[in-house]
Amino acid sequence: MKVTLLHHTPLHIVAGAIRTCWASQARSDSTVDTCGPEDRALIDRIGNKMKHESVKNHMTYNFYFEGITTKTLLALTRHDVGVEFSVQSTRYTTKKAVNNNTAAYTKSQSVRVNKYLEVLNEMIKDCVENNEANDEISLLLPQAWNYNLTCSMSLSAVQHFLRLRLKRDAHWDIQDLARHILDSIPKEHLYLFDEYIPKELTDG
Amino acid sequence: MKVTLLHHTPLHIVAGAIRTCWASQARSDSTVDTCGPEDRALIDRIGNKMKHESVKNHMTYNFYFEGITTKTLLALTRHDVGVEFSVQSTRYTTKKAVNNNTAAYTKSQSVRVNKYLEVLNEMIKDCVENNEANDEISLLLPQAWNYNLTCSMSLSAVQHFLRLRLKRDAHWDIQDLARHILDSIPKEHLYLFDEYIPKELTDG
Amino acid sequence: MKVTLLHHTPLHIVAGAIRTCWASQARSDSTVDTCGPEDRALIDRIGNKMKHESVKNHMTYNFYFEGITTKTLLALTRHDVGVEFSVQSTRYTTKKAVNNNTAAYTKSQSVRVNKYLEVLNEMIKDCVENNEANDEISLLLPQAWNYNLTCSMSLSAVQHFLRLRLKRDAHWDIQDLARHILDSIPKEHLYLFDEYIPKELTDG
Amino acid sequence: MKVTLLHHTPLHIVAGAIRTCWASQARSDSTVDTCGPEDRALIDRIGNKMKHESVKNHMTYNFYFEGITTKTLLALTRHDVGVEFSVQSTRYTTKKAVNNNTAAYTKSQSVRVNKYLEVLNEMIKDCVENNEANDEISLLLPQAWNYNLTCSMSLSAVQHFLRLRLKRDAHWDIQDLARHILDSIPKEHLYLFDEYIPKELTDG
Repeated sequence: MKVTLLHHTPLHIVAGAIRTCWASQARSDSTVDTCGPEDRALIDRIGNKMKHESVKNHMTYNFYFEGITTKTLLALTRHDVGVEFSVQSTRYTTKKAVNNNTAAYTKSQSVRVNKYLEVLNEMIKDCVENNEANDEISLLLPQAWNYNLTCSMSLSAVQHFLRLRLKRDAHWDIQDLARHILDSIPKEHLYLFDEYIPKELTDG
Repeated sequence: MKVTLLHHTPLHIVAGAIRTCWASQARSDSTVDTCGPEDRALIDRIGNKMKHESVKNHMTYNFYFEGITTKTLLALTRHDVGVEFSVQSTRYTTKKAVNNNTAAYTKSQSVRVNKYLEVLNEMIKDCVENNEANDEISLLLPQAWNYNLTCSMSLSAVQHFLRLRLKRDAHWDIQDLARHILDSIPKEHLYLFDEYIPKELTDG
Repeated sequence: MKVTLLHHTPLHIVAGAIRTCWASQARSDSTVDTCGPEDRALIDRIGNKMKHESVKNHMTYNFYFEGITTKTLLALTRHDVGVEFSVQSTRYTTKKAVNNNTAAYTKSQSVRVNKYLEVLNEMIKDCVENNEANDEISLLLPQAWNYNLTCSMSLSAVQHFLRLRLKRDAHWDIQDLARHILDSIPKEHLYLFDEYIPKELTDG
Repeated sequence: MKVTLLHHTPLHIVAGAIRTCWASQARSDSTVDTCGPEDRALIDRIGNKMKHESVKNHMTYNFYFEGITTKTLLALTRHDVGVEFSVQSTRYTTKKAVNNNTAAYTKSQSVRVNKYLEVLNEMIKDCVENNEANDEISLLLPQAWNYNLTCSMSLSAVQHFLRLRLKRDAHWDIQDLARHILDSIPKEHLYLFDEYIPKELTDG
């Protein structure tokens, strides 16, 4: 699995949006390029502490996710507020991927399941070799099967995702995605996520 | 596959919402129970012909879908505007379903794929018998695997879904869902869907 | 101001949606017409206590609001998630309303402001008598000016609205709307709103 | 009125999102900094011509609007899909603005209405001098009154806004906003808006 942050809205845009409400732009300490310490604290105070969630929707993160399971994709699609996906289509790419050796699936933590995933993989290859239609072959693809996607999320959506999916009772594959997302966030944004990291991960 | 319409907003609510905009409530011919012919025509004229899409969001259809494939569920989750899902969770129900013989998958149109789906089904049963964790077994479940869900959709969302998914180039399983949804719509609402039925289905 | 609840989704639809996730429909104690005590408790436990907010989006309330101020309408439009409006259009109705004596504005709590609202009202009447265009007259309409609207809200959206707008620091006109909405909710639904009523209103 | 484009997602992000679906990234002609001609054509073909609207939601424009009327703000709030606002609050800023001489209203095209707006402006000043509460004074503010806001819109939302609001039958103030938005769009993005400019403006 790999997560790449392709682009994000600058922090000072969010600070500026907040300052619009109180007409306090004169007190901004941001420049065109950087978000000043007062403005950084303002985002946390108004957007996080005071729960004016909507100001956080001015900030979008554009990610590229590689190698997430179908299982995780299914879970991800429940996060629909402030999230936009463009997903590799199995209708167009299954045979191409198998032929190019770029098709992949995520290994299970169970020896038995892994053995069966290998059998299944051979059955899928056999269907491709026999030129079955992508629409039929894809019915065989297991939830371990990997997808790539471009995913754009608002600041609120990323916070909400991390709070739910970093938890130890989340499925291990989506936990892994959540950690990769957190690792891809710019260091100077991390203070906005502090209270969204489950306590079980930060205690002791 | 089975689609049941559990509940829907009465048509006269949509007509009333439209009449609010022009303060023309005095000209309504609806009663508490029925939507009159003038009001029915108004919904079509303003909501469909004049494309004031938003008035159609006052109308919600609550459906229960049984036996749709994972493949269709994945496609369905792209329809996120005006749609809400509550889906059977494989994390809680996989072993229970296999043990109760309520687990099901949709047959492919390919003999080879079907043969492999049977093999896969036996492998899944073996994992259940050996008490592998649901989180591991579910990695094996194929896109043919069936889900049940409660799905609430606005009038606009149903129209948009039918327009895209009744088409002959849609995957046959989601085409089948689209036809079942159309069949479950009350007869007196069907006039609102006329222009959303792909021409290829109504010509000749 | 007046709020009328025109229609709402039955409670048992929400309970059914929750039971879909665990395939526990067999344990439902609802009938076609009523939501049983177990199912009622389930909605509160999963939707409220366990914060699976999305299940509450299967429930829609369709309201008709009469006589709310432009100020409140402006605030209301910030509540966009799970909310749909159809608002009386000043472009079409201003002169008609003034001529029919159905135009109205909400009185201020300040004697001075009220005196000026009366002056302004006379100026608006003068513009109507002189047949100025609605598009020009409407630039004069004050935020005290009244609108009627049809408003459809999900259960989550109503809860969120009441939590914010019943508070004593909200503007008194939107507080009034929040109280009217709460009064229009069916008695058997009120248990779902308990934790959304600000503490300051329920303490002693 | 003034519109400033503060930031936007780079075009090549949208092209990359589209290429994800077909796994055709190898054919991209974009670099880290620029969107190549093939990729530019791809966005238009898939997002506009083939109406895969959702790919356009990866692109966000962050605008700052100065001096729009309350009337336009009311209309703007109907555009809720893919739009986020942070608006100057009259509850906090009315007296401050009047005292600082930064309060403003848009002149009407009617001599009579303008005369009355001047009278009203004096009444508002009198209320401020007599230290009436912002919550009461704001009930007097007319729809000509000006607001500043930060507004973030997806590519789809901007296209939809321009198609509706550039039309000659739209209110002249919101037409003016639409023209200012169009003028603020980067030149190399304008090709994506061609089919959204009403024909009445481009014919002859």
